[in-house]
Formats: sequence, C-alpha cells, structure tokens
Amino acid sequence: MSKSVNVAIIGAGVVGSAFINQLANLKAPVAFKVVYLARSSKEAVFSKDYSAVDLKNYKTAPAQAVLPLDELTSYLTAAKRPTILVDNTSNSSIADFYPKFVEAGISIATPNKKAFSSDLATWNDIFKKSAAANGGLVYHEATVGAGLPIIGPLRDLVLTGDKVEKIEGILSGSLSYVFNTLSTSEKSDKKFSDVVKVAKDLGYLERDPRDDLNGMDFARKVTILARIAGFEVESPNSFAVDSLVPQPLESLATGAEFLEKLPEYDNDFQKRKDDALAENKVLRYVGQVDFKANKVSVGIAKYDFDHPFASLKGSDNVVSIKTERYPNPLIIQGAGAGAEVTAHGVLADAIKIAERIAN
Amino acid sequence: MSKSVNVAIIGAGVVGSAFINQLANLKAPVAFKVVYLARSSKEAVFSKDYSAVDLKNYKTAPAQAVLPLDELTSYLTAAKRPTILVDNTSNSSIADFYPKFVEAGISIATPNKKAFSSDLATWNDIFKKSAAANGGLVYHEATVGAGLPIIGPLRDLVLTGDKVEKIEGILSGSLSYVFNTLSTSEKSDKKFSDVVKVAKDLGYLERDPRDDLNGMDFARKVTILARIAGFEVESPNSFAVDSLVPQPLESLATGAEFLEKLPEYDNDFQKRKDDALAENKVLRYVGQVDFKANKVSVGIAKYDFDHPFASLKGSDNVVSIKTERYPNPLIIQGAGAGAEVTAHGVLADAIKIAERIAN
Repeated sequence: MSKSVNVAIIGAGVVGSAFINQLANLKAPVAFKVVYLARSSKEAVFSKDYSAVDLKNYKTAPAQAVLPLDELTSYLTAAKRPTILVDNTSNSSIADFYPKFVEAGISIATPNKKAFSSDLATWNDIFKKSAAANGGLVYHEATVGAGLPIIGPLRDLVLTGDKVEKIEGILSGSLSYVFNTLSTSEKSDKKFSDVVKVAKDLGYLERDPRDDLNGMDFARKVTILARIAGFEVESPNSFAVDSLVPQPLESLATGAEFLEKLPEYDNDFQKRKDDALAENKVLRYVGQVDFKANKVSVGIAKYDFDHPFASLKGSDNVVSIKTERYPNPLIIQGAGAGAEVTAHGVLADAIKIAERIAN
Repeated sequence: MSKSVNVAIIGAGVVGSAFINQLANLKAPVAFKVVYLARSSKEAVFSKDYSAVDLKNYKTAPAQAVLPLDELTSYLTAAKRPTILVDNTSNSSIADFYPKFVEAGISIATPNKKAFSSDLATWNDIFKKSAAANGGLVYHEATVGAGLPIIGPLRDLVLTGDKVEKIEGILSGSLSYVFNTLSTSEKSDKKFSDVVKVAKDLGYLERDPRDDLNGMDFARKVTILARIAGFEVESPNSFAVDSLVPQPLESLATGAEFLEKLPEYDNDFQKRKDDALAENKVLRYVGQVDFKANKVSVGIAKYDFDHPFASLKGSDNVVSIKTERYPNPLIIQGAGAGAEVTAHGVLADAIKIAERIAN
C-alpha cells in the first residue's frame, strides 16, 4: 500500500486554485489526502470523519464555516496522521499561528512571506519548534522568487559548510520589468513615469503602485535570504531600503494621484540613468546581503553591460550567490511571480515534506 | 536522541577526500555514522561491529582489503540500519552494482555518471527498484553541473506536472572555458589550438584532451537531463554528438601528438567564429534536448551577444530549462566542476536521503 499524508489547504485565490489544480493532477509516489480546504476566508470544505475533499468540485461542494486556527489544529492532530498545512494566503494572522501548528507536529508548505519576514524572534521560534522532536517541518521555497530554486539550494550550501559572502538579487517582478525597460545599454529617453504606467497596465504592479515601488515587499524577501545565509536581520525595517516613491508623493491619498504627479520626477531618474550609461552601466533595483561589509540593503545599483543582471528580460527575477566555494557566483534566474510557478514551488515543497513524513 | 544513518563511502580521491572533510565538519540534525570507507581500490577502513570510522584519521587507520560488492551489501544490510552508500568514484563496475544495492534497500548518493548515462534499461532498472517497497533512494545531483541545483529542480518541475519544452546547457567546464575564451563579441584571431593548450595547462582538460573534446562526457550529462525530462534516450551514443576532434586526428596514438597537429585546423574554427560574429553571435558548445523537434544533440551552436550563454565567464556551466510554465527559461549558472562544489552536491544529497530514512 502506498504511503499517504493528510493535507489542509487554506486559500483558493489565484495561487491557491492553481495549487489545487496541480495537486488534483499529481502523480506522486505519496498519496495526498486533502481533509480540509478553506476556499475563502469564510467557507471551508471538510467533514468530521476526515473524508477526502474532491479537488475537482471543491468550489461547489457543501461547505461549513472555516475553523478558527486553534480548532483547525485540534481537528488535524486528532486524525493522528502525518499532516501538511498548505497556506496559500498572504494573511498575517495565519502566519502568526505557524509556531503553534509546528509545535503540534503539523508541517507547513507556503508562499506566504509574513511569518518569515517579520521579527527575528518569530523566525527563531518557528525553526526551533520545527527542529524539536515531533515538530512539524517548514518549507517555504515560494516565499522568494516563486518556484525558482533559491531557498533550497541556499540552505544546502549553508548546511554543507559553505560560507556565503554576498547575495545579490532582483526579487521583484514588477521592479525587474521597470528597470529592464527603463535602463538598457542603448541611450534612451524612456521616462520612469511612463514605464511605471505600462507596468501597471500589464498587471505587474499593485493597485497602488507605491506598494511595490516603496521596496518593502522586496525587503521582506531579502530578509528571508539573509536569515538563511546566517545574517541575523531583526526585521525588514532594520536595514536601508531605498524607496522609489519620491518623498513628497508618499502622503498622497491614492495611487491615481501618485501616478499623476510622478512625471515631475522623471528628470531625476533620467539623470541617474545617463550617469550610469556614461560608465557603461545600467541601473537595476536590487537587494544585497553583504557579509564582508556587514550590510543588508535594497535600492538602485549599477551593473556592467555584460553582467547577468544587465541582460535580464521582462519581469524575470535573478539571484546571485557568492560563497567561499562559488567565488564566481551561483546564479538562478527566471520567472519570479505568477500563479502556476508559485503553486509549483509550493507543491514541490509539499512533496518533499510528504517524502519525509508520510507513512 | 537524534536520528542516525549508517554511511558507506567508496573513494577518497580528489572529490572523495573533499566529501569526507565536509562530512567530518557537518553540523546536521541527522547523525551520519560511517561504517565503511574504501580509501583506495584496495583498502577499506571498517570493522565487523560497525564502529564509526574516524573521519579525521582515515588515511592512516588500520585497513583491510576492500569488500567485494556483494559482500559489502551483506555487511551493510546485516546492520539493520538505514544506510547510504556514497560512491565518489567514476568506476563502472560499482555503478553496475547500483540496482543490487538499491534492491537491498541501500540508498545511493553519488557524482558517478556511469549508471545513469549507460543504456536506458539500467536507468529504468535502478529507478524501478528504488520505487519498490523498501527500495533504496537514489540521488545524483552532482552527476550534472557538480553542486549546481539542476537535477533536483528539474525533477520538481516534472513531478508537479510541468512540461519541459527545451533544455539547453553548457555542461562541460573545459569546453565552456575553451569557447568563452575563443569566441567573444569582439573580433579576435585567438587560435583554437592555442586556447586548448592553455585550457590543458590550467588543468581543465583530461590528460588526452580528446577525452573532453570528443563531447562524450558531455553527452552523458545530456543523456541524464533528457531522461529526467521524459525523453527516453537509449544511450549517449544514440544521438548526434559533434566531436571537436578533427576526424584525421582521432587515430593518433597520444594526446601530445594530437596537440601538435591541432593547429592545422585553426582556420576551420576561425571561419566558423567569423561567420557567427558577422551575425552578431558567438559560438558555444552546447547540449540540447528539444521536445518539439524530438531531438537530442551535442555540438556547436550560435547565440546572440545578449543571450546568457554569451556572457558566460571562465569555466562556468549553465543550463536553460524552457517549460510550459517557464516560457522565459529557468536558468542556473555557476561552477560545474571542482572537488569542493562536487562534494557539496553529494553531501547535500546524502542529507536529503538521511532526512527521509534516518531513524
């Protein structure tokens, strides 16, 4: 008889529904039995006898009120089966509950950055509880670069004794697009505000573009990579983040007003771009974890035309990891956002967990 | 009490000794107990009571004759403990024995390409036995690109239901160096034979450079990636490999004679290079697995100056994986050879196995 795990899924939004679809079509050596599926913040499909949720018609299946997280924990642990909780939300209150899930022996696979990029104490708490006897496992590859293999390989390097010297990365699809379009090896007078507007129209930016342009989401990803590499970042607010939102525009009420005023700052960006071009460089918005300089930062940096970051295309992400063993950095590049690749990252994690805990 | 596994190590050469050193310094949640260490093809350190081999002085410890592989299997299985065999050789006869190890429940971590790149029947046999109840696990990340995360991420993509469309890669450090040096975006009259000689002096090439230049070692790596992606390659001899050894030089007795005659062919390479440059392209020696064209190949191809393969540096490897979910390919790049990075790849695999089987 093949091995199996119980699975609880929270979230059936864009990423969540892609995940459910991939899981429904999975041919894996481990059987995944979904015993709880919260299809919205209010409704969940499950039954007290733990019968398997049919992933083909979860949208229309009879539902109940979602369980409060402590009751969900009791429900899952009472099954006395290895269990994976898949959190496909970006919800803080679910993230805040991770230590309790893990302590109760429930493993977690998630693209939700919140728990891993808040204060350092939470990070330490989660992984300490995970390492304890009977603690749940925690995999979160999709919190950085979606399905790109970044966190797993970085953990492998650290675990086998390599010393990370520097991590550099373009970890925002929207800001990747903006700078790849704005700053190229050819002279151009493309305006920053115009590129931002196109990015918005393409759906790369949040409803209020400032939520991307302020660099805070990016800073959360840098926080996660820094911590894995052994740089004890207190929080994403504890290091320099160079916001692309001009200070006078921070207080505007709406994203629309912001976009209207943004052209006033195009000349500043044009000058920075021209200065870089005069040095045969392009501008990129990057995160850096620099052990030698003992510094973590997010902001605009300049790169030579033949640097891998300079030839980045579209909205791709890229990470460069320089270590004692990789003086020429290890580079990983590709789509760092999107429902299918994010769901793939979460599912690959869930499979890795299942391979370890299924029985 | 922490979990543990038994480990048998075969090989203490350049990669093997780096592995042993990394393992000796490992701080992992799983305890690795080395119960057998073959430090040469003749001598092994072990004892009938399975006491742990001291990894700090295995070179001088009292040794016995190495066990024949069937006796090694009996010795390891009689311990009734989860066991990982680490094969740090490139030996065919050990590789031929993998199906028996795996059938006996012994897991394998190895950089040895032989078992995975010979006939397809062997590949199928190994993974069928591995999938059986109580079969050993098989991890071989370091067979392609050394410690670069290629095989694991590719398996993840396939397992979660993505469809691979094309894999392209520069999977030979020596041939990467030769072409990165020979063919750049600037016009040069660097001679092929001179670059080969420098590569030889730098230690990038085998004693007889033809063993690299014939593309067969490269073809083995392409065979492995193709099979993981679902392309059933019969053997590395079953597809077109464009050898860089001019046909009349194949029969020369020694590598020295080969190097002496090679300059006679410099003009051919210069012409190919100039033709590429006229199209604003560079030459690279690449492997390709093309599902649309239903074709696997190894040989010289041309790339635009702003393609990631064109800006490759030194002896780095690079792989580009284009899939349904990654129409803009996933790219992984970095050192693809060297003792430390290879050992790291093997150790990371051993840890992953241990996390699954330790008790």
